[in-house]
Amino acid sequence: MSEATQFPIPRGFRFGAAVAGIKASGRPDFSLIAADTPASAAAAFTANRVIAAPLIVDRENLRASGGKVRVVAINAGNANCAAGQAGLDAARATCTAAAQVFGCSPEEVFPSSTGVIGVPLPLEKIARAMPGLAARMGRERDHFLEVAEAILTTDTVKKTVFARVERTDAGQMGCEIRIAALGKGSGMIHPQLVPHATMLVFILTDAAIEPADLQSFLNPAIGTSFNRISVDGDTSTNDTVLLLASGASGIPVARGDKAFQDALTQTCTSLAKQIVADGEGVSHVVELRITGAASDEDALRVARAIAHSPLVKTAWAGCDPNWGRLAAAIGYSGAEIDPARIDIRFGDLPICREGGRAAEYDEAAAHAYLSQEEFSISIELNQGQGSCVFWTTDLTADYIHINADYST
Amino acid sequence: MSEATQFPIPRGFRFGAAVAGIKASGRPDFSLIAADTPASAAAAFTANRVIAAPLIVDRENLRASGGKVRVVAINAGNANCAAGQAGLDAARATCTAAAQVFGCSPEEVFPSSTGVIGVPLPLEKIARAMPGLAARMGRERDHFLEVAEAILTTDTVKKTVFARVERTDAGQMGCEIRIAALGKGSGMIHPQLVPHATMLVFILTDAAIEPADLQSFLNPAIGTSFNRISVDGDTSTNDTVLLLASGASGIPVARGDKAFQDALTQTCTSLAKQIVADGEGVSHVVELRITGAASDEDALRVARAIAHSPLVKTAWAGCDPNWGRLAAAIGYSGAEIDPARIDIRFGDLPICREGGRAAEYDEAAAHAYLSQEEFSISIELNQGQGSCVFWTTDLTADYIHINADYST
Repeated sequence: MSEATQFPIPRGFRFGAAVAGIKASGRPDFSLIAADTPASAAAAFTANRVIAAPLIVDRENLRASGGKVRVVAINAGNANCAAGQAGLDAARATCTAAAQVFGCSPEEVFPSSTGVIGVPLPLEKIARAMPGLAARMGRERDHFLEVAEAILTTDTVKKTVFARVERTDAGQMGCEIRIAALGKGSGMIHPQLVPHATMLVFILTDAAIEPADLQSFLNPAIGTSFNRISVDGDTSTNDTVLLLASGASGIPVARGDKAFQDALTQTCTSLAKQIVADGEGVSHVVELRITGAASDEDALRVARAIAHSPLVKTAWAGCDPNWGRLAAAIGYSGAEIDPARIDIRFGDLPICREGGRAAEYDEAAAHAYLSQEEFSISIELNQGQGSCVFWTTDLTADYIHINADYST
Repeated sequence: MSEATQFPIPRGFRFGAAVAGIKASGRPDFSLIAADTPASAAAAFTANRVIAAPLIVDRENLRASGGKVRVVAINAGNANCAAGQAGLDAARATCTAAAQVFGCSPEEVFPSSTGVIGVPLPLEKIARAMPGLAARMGRERDHFLEVAEAILTTDTVKKTVFARVERTDAGQMGCEIRIAALGKGSGMIHPQLVPHATMLVFILTDAAIEPADLQSFLNPAIGTSFNRISVDGDTSTNDTVLLLASGASGIPVARGDKAFQDALTQTCTSLAKQIVADGEGVSHVVELRITGAASDEDALRVARAIAHSPLVKTAWAGCDPNWGRLAAAIGYSGAEIDPARIDIRFGDLPICREGGRAAEYDEAAAHAYLSQEEFSISIELNQGQGSCVFWTTDLTADYIHINADYST
């Protein structure tokens, strides 16, 4: 009970992972999440036009099943993308195999893949691992963490979030809705999710929510979390966020429920920040606070230009207060700006005022501030009311080493 | 005479460089190019909305002088950007100082700066160096090369092009128009020039051409050269291309002259490729040939997405034929594509056909091909008739080292 209190795993789900032999490292690479009964599902996938085969099959299946999912089948080490018809066939065969083992329809299976692109998926390894894994799945924290481990690729740490929503109104006294989320992602991280993201995120709850209502909670939560992060600006072919609601708490949640929305948004934000912090080769996590933009879209343009500028990101790697690179990126962002009205602060330190070096600019203090593992940069454009908060990283030599020798 | 034949420096110009003490290294950092009489000028500047002070003054001066330039005054080591009113004052004071020394009007002076952004320009160093330098300028190849050296920042080699256009029609038998160009640029290289680019390019000719006609030659030459390169995707605040025509050959060139246009376009293309090849930390120069796009704009979207993808660029650094990263970048480029119709070749090697791995794919051969210092990647989208050729680079650990410790 004390463990369940500390780690409130949502009721109605079983978890497990195995070594299927897809990762060359020999580490666990195949996971299953199974719902006891068909769970309500809401999902969001990458906006990339090159879309991995499992995402195509997922969309078909969600449509065919009316937004219901029994089994999530996740492999790491192979993205099953750019593999033509064979890729689609492999994704569908995964569904068929899972349906046989779990006694559900193939449309109730949600395949998911992450890893190298353009290499055929070794379906036979997945089919071989499935029955044994299905037989030893469990409901406890350790089973959940097995999945959180097995879905990783270049990630260095597991990424999980646990939350609960207490219900104290009459008749539900002492009841709670549980939310647990697990995710992976370290490189090719610039999710651009559209509601229907090689970041994989699975969020589970035991609330009772219909699929359409579930999607109405997921969309805003994604908008201010996963769609506001970037490690390298590369939008993956495989990004996926899946939210499943088992209903096993017995607590219905109606559209617009603020407490549930807040808990879900906080869960997504926490996981998004964990993904940024474990970005490939990252030595600094940077929060960008853009204010005074002509529109929220303009604020996002400025944040993305900064987050994707190699010169800005390398300056951060060197703890270098070279704010001129920030000014250049703001200038080519495409946002409406007046250079003479731009103010920049590092934390509370005045850096740039009205487009020029602030009178109080203190290079040593700025350098010391940027030497922290996490820091915040505020940019006031003085154009209007548009704003955004965005999380990104520096660009280090380690990023190069990690990515200059991946598939070979 | 043999030297002039080999290096046809355009007539009507003098050149020189000095150590003004702006670069911390103590290397030459201030240059002058002077025309004997007011030269016709055509220019193009960065599309960045944060624009360095000299570019603002250059536009004002060209308008005031009717497109005529007597003196180009170039400093390296300081971009004179984001320096507020003090920056504009310093640029204008440079014009006044040059006007006094050369006996022209301040509007006939073209100041130009490159280096760190956000640090006040030490005007007094420029003013102190000017008279002595003006007194020892010359017309020879060595004087020209002094300027080519002194304008460099993180560049490792001088970038020059020499061309001539022979005129064999009656009355001009044996006559030639000379073109010489010099440029710098290594980082913050993704010029987006608009006709009126921290790349600095100065192109000189002794043809006799009116300013408006000169601009009509410059615009198309830029469109397929400087605007088709990227090292790091960072568009500078200081990019400038200046074309001066002294008329000293006595040979008039009319609007639309194909031989002159071809020579100018080739000059720009050669210099653009030299800038890419000397990009910061570059170990591979990559030619992208995009064909079959729905439009030329779409072809350029695909080329830019690939050229700016850290994952693609790091794969190139590792000679890694991980073409899935190319597919991902094509997918998020914003271009109209059908993933199942994409063909990719490395040189003549089939890599991807109809969106999947080509049957003839040979990883060892692909790796060997990518191990060359220069290679070409062809992408056929099979959507339409749009195309482009674009030059870019890999992203190496050296780039990080160069840029993680620049201003401090």
